[in-house]
Amino acid sequence: MTKPWFKNLRQIEPYVPGEQSKNENIIKLNANENPYPPSPQVMQALREIRPENLSLYPNSNAQKLVDAIAQYHGVKSSQVFVGNGSDDVIALSFMAFFNSDKPILFPDITYSFYPVWCRLFNIPYETPKVDDNFKIIPSDYYKPNGGVIFPNPNAPTGIGEGKEFIKDILNHNPDSIVIVDEAYVDFGCYSSIELLKEYDNLLVVQTFSKSRSMAGMRIGAAIGNEELIGVLNAVKNSYNSYTLDSVAIECGSAAVNDDEYFKSTLLKISSTRDRVSDIFKKMGFTVYPSQSNFIFVTKNDISAKALFEYLKSKNIFIRYFNLPRIDNHLRITIGTDEQMDTLIKETENYLNGLK
Amino acid sequence: MTKPWFKNLRQIEPYVPGEQSKNENIIKLNANENPYPPSPQVMQALREIRPENLSLYPNSNAQKLVDAIAQYHGVKSSQVFVGNGSDDVIALSFMAFFNSDKPILFPDITYSFYPVWCRLFNIPYETPKVDDNFKIIPSDYYKPNGGVIFPNPNAPTGIGEGKEFIKDILNHNPDSIVIVDEAYVDFGCYSSIELLKEYDNLLVVQTFSKSRSMAGMRIGAAIGNEELIGVLNAVKNSYNSYTLDSVAIECGSAAVNDDEYFKSTLLKISSTRDRVSDIFKKMGFTVYPSQSNFIFVTKNDISAKALFEYLKSKNIFIRYFNLPRIDNHLRITIGTDEQMDTLIKETENYLNGLK
Repeated sequence: MTKPWFKNLRQIEPYVPGEQSKNENIIKLNANENPYPPSPQVMQALREIRPENLSLYPNSNAQKLVDAIAQYHGVKSSQVFVGNGSDDVIALSFMAFFNSDKPILFPDITYSFYPVWCRLFNIPYETPKVDDNFKIIPSDYYKPNGGVIFPNPNAPTGIGEGKEFIKDILNHNPDSIVIVDEAYVDFGCYSSIELLKEYDNLLVVQTFSKSRSMAGMRIGAAIGNEELIGVLNAVKNSYNSYTLDSVAIECGSAAVNDDEYFKSTLLKISSTRDRVSDIFKKMGFTVYPSQSNFIFVTKNDISAKALFEYLKSKNIFIRYFNLPRIDNHLRITIGTDEQMDTLIKETENYLNGLK
Repeated sequence: MTKPWFKNLRQIEPYVPGEQSKNENIIKLNANENPYPPSPQVMQALREIRPENLSLYPNSNAQKLVDAIAQYHGVKSSQVFVGNGSDDVIALSFMAFFNSDKPILFPDITYSFYPVWCRLFNIPYETPKVDDNFKIIPSDYYKPNGGVIFPNPNAPTGIGEGKEFIKDILNHNPDSIVIVDEAYVDFGCYSSIELLKEYDNLLVVQTFSKSRSMAGMRIGAAIGNEELIGVLNAVKNSYNSYTLDSVAIECGSAAVNDDEYFKSTLLKISSTRDRVSDIFKKMGFTVYPSQSNFIFVTKNDISAKALFEYLKSKNIFIRYFNLPRIDNHLRITIGTDEQMDTLIKETENYLNGLK
């Protein structure tokens, strides 16, 4: 590289998004998408978009969606921030809240984007190890730090923690912003939103991509005290005033307002998850207790990677991570019962073939 | 402020987006929106969105839209980057390309977001003054710098520059990335896209918000050499892998593919602009030669602010900037002929009332 302007380029290791197949006949259990469609009211809101919704700028606060989320959670609208997927919300939160010289803390096994944002924004970080059962050890988060973030339930393990665990971390971190990333919380995990009344340094992040079947629409939200939300808005308005388009605002509001559909979808997924977990256990897998829309499994007498490749050859895509400590594990998104039955059948075929 | 976590908050002056009125009966000439609807093919694409477009993640490269834009401009798909509005594209470009200790350069009178991004990303900057006719002085951009950005046509003046001007700046800046922000280029200005063949340090940014009537959909694009686009993608994928939602990808592609509608809308706006410019000149205004979808006007014997307030009281919203050098000027978006006739009538009424 000899071009004179090369020295001004950002030196960055390209982050490669997860594998996408163009084959539409696959069973796609690799991205934690929801197998059920979004609420019919979302599709209705989409059909009602008028040309002027597109030709005019959106409301830069996405006020309609903010109000719907605030009402849903019983908080003030000034406590809610929305962004272009929870990745956008978390990226802006890193810029807004992690400005210390001390390292921020998050588990070694967790959402793989956290260290990517740290490198992008030059934020120092440390990654305390989860224990051998992949549980976060709260006392690792007692030391001085520049902030704390962890998903609850954690990814890619699906393991969730309860109120006392969250309170313990908050009680030991009065000097830091603590972000609880609740991307998968709706599938049966404890939500920290009620703790906002007690802790002004808590920020809860959620997404519409999983439980609300709207990964294609890119909507994430943060809920916290007014002051944190104010700083988040100031940073967002210094980056991009209009992150959410008018269609997302309308469709997102419709999704929040159809709670009955939401709850029925959650019930279907958690019931399928529990059934599939039991069957994988019977097949000899270790299945970690999942409070999410995926299960994390291992079987110490087989190669996870080989099973992953076998299933791929059968057009079933699950997720394999070639990472320390979890390189013999698999993350499987919960699809429909029919999809999971095919997965189970092929997994049995594979295991029988090894005998 | 005594909260212990306060020290970790980003200290930032909140950027306040432009005024939005909730009154639907106003004539809105303050945000450079397009008075005409997007292409009927865009609305058709919107109607064809299926539930699975929403429940699954979008293609993270927005490949369909990237391909459509590449084909439109006769460049390779690897030379095109798309983002969530051109603000997102420019913000990511600042992170990707302005990493020098030397200041970046942009005009003192220009798009007001440039200094905001510099402050957000800690990029040093200098702002050479445009001349008394608000023309950019090319020789101001000959000195060593960390990068150059300017809109062509410039905002809020609407003044455009031609090929020789752009080449002159590029010829004097082989060591820097030069970004030409072509937000308004389609309304009659010279586009630098043809210069990409000659200059590998040129990045051209465009938007769907103005000429394609899609401000509510948030689509921007950058066109440049493969290496620049590669770095931009690496930065984007380290920030948010999925900035463009599936609806925007489908609707944006449909817009690009309906060139006939696009051209007819441009013609309507430029013809209204030229007519309105002449009338304002006859009323005694100085009207700068506009190559955009707005005009920038002043009348030295009246107060721009007072006229702005008067028009507002008549439900006509235009833009007044309380900024040095332009605080007796007004920026008026080109609406429909009917809207402009009402504006002209009320402006005449105001001037007659002063006699």
